Amino acid sequence: MHLTFTSEQRLDDGVLERAFTLGDVPGILWTPASASASTPAPLILLGQPSLGLRKMYPRLVGRARHAAADGFATATLELPDCGDRPRSAAAEQARADLRRVMQAGEPVSDEIVDALVLPLVEKAVPEAQAALDALLALPEIGGKVGYSGGVISIGIRLAVVEPRIAAAGLFAGSLVPRTMFDEARRVTIPLHVLLQWDDEGNDRQAALDLFDAFGSKEKTLVANMGGHTGVPQSAGDDAARFFTRHLK
Amino acid sequence: MHLTFTSEQRLDDGVLERAFTLGDVPGILWTPASASASTPAPLILLGQPSLGLRKMYPRLVGRARHAAADGFATATLELPDCGDRPRSAAAEQARADLRRVMQAGEPVSDEIVDALVLPLVEKAVPEAQAALDALLALPEIGGKVGYSGGVISIGIRLAVVEPRIAAAGLFAGSLVPRTMFDEARRVTIPLHVLLQWDDEGNDRQAALDLFDAFGSKEKTLVANMGGHTGVPQSAGDDAARFFTRHLK
Repeated sequence: MHLTFTSEQRLDDGVLERAFTLGDVPGILWTPASASASTPAPLILLGQPSLGLRKMYPRLVGRARHAAADGFATATLELPDCGDRPRSAAAEQARADLRRVMQAGEPVSDEIVDALVLPLVEKAVPEAQAALDALLALPEIGGKVGYSGGVISIGIRLAVVEPRIAAAGLFAGSLVPRTMFDEARRVTIPLHVLLQWDDEGNDRQAALDLFDAFGSKEKTLVANMGGHTGVPQSAGDDAARFFTRHLK
Repeated sequence: MHLTFTSEQRLDDGVLERAFTLGDVPGILWTPASASASTPAPLILLGQPSLGLRKMYPRLVGRARHAAADGFATATLELPDCGDRPRSAAAEQARADLRRVMQAGEPVSDEIVDALVLPLVEKAVPEAQAALDALLALPEIGGKVGYSGGVISIGIRLAVVEPRIAAAGLFAGSLVPRTMFDEARRVTIPLHVLLQWDDEGNDRQAALDLFDAFGSKEKTLVANMGGHTGVPQSAGDDAARFFTRHLK
């Protein structure tokens, strides 16, 4: 897929922010001021929840600036069926089903989780791999690649199928299809897993089971208080050090 | 109880190591080279497992040097019925009972855990408080106090009863009497809890339940691989930053 830069701006901390399209997928690339052909920056793919790039921009740019201060380039893609991208009928149906059972206070069935998450994984992972092809061809980007946050099932699949991903920081805060537990056993790269202990929308036991399932010899679970969106600053700093240890 | 320094040596990194007795309890105090009456160092009490100060010295001095590099004084006491201290018949009996059931591959009963741990807590906590009285009276020590590691039940009791303890880093790797879960609910200070996920001698579910029970609004669980004694360097660094955030 072809990478086309559509706009660029220099942020006040010297970070270069470039919007792009990869085929018909919108995305954003951030590179530290220091990145150049002679000193290429290692890349971290920033995952995001399925709320759309526009809505998530403030948090994404914060993560990108933090990573740039540590010498990393970061990039993120609009997820399939999210944000400004066209929605499939199946994705709309799965979201409507989820809303219905949650409003009714019913348990979310495996069928609904599978319908919500598995097609997203199937579509998003090849797009992330195509983004790696295109971004790693840029002279100012090079070295090891990390994956950070977002829909955890996408991170799991990427860690299994994409050998360029050398380390992953995952966020255990979303619904996980049962088949992903089997995939988790096949993950062997170093993992840093964040869990919000008092995240009421998240199944804590499932998150602990998933952490247990990961095949990685080097894996860390960090659980904090503060609810789904309340990851403390210190946890972000710890995750940043994880990437510095493993990608540099 | 009276504090008497019995020997002192300056380590190669400038840390002053002083052996002392507090009444008849042996202990060690480490102070960074920078500590003085005009710039007193905050104190971290170093807990230890019940293996005796002499045996634990290499690891304790490592933790002390690390803390000193961050500007902290540290101190540790020989635990009751441990190391060079006289053993009570009850403590010897409890240890013999534990050895017997472990060699037989039997489960460790609540009675054995209570007999092993509760008297240790009852004796060690007042001694730790007496040490605080004596050490905080030294001109080169002052400010907030932390508690780090060791027998987790001692840390829990100290966090409940001793208001000078402002933050605690605990190690979820020892047998915990059931009554300590109730005490854990009364803990409100910031906590940083380490768990070795693959510690075969430790009940992982009990450790998770204990973390859940803590009443603290600010608590972090960090789980790593590497077995009981394999806490990775990065986890020690994260714990050090926890104390820097909360005691300085």
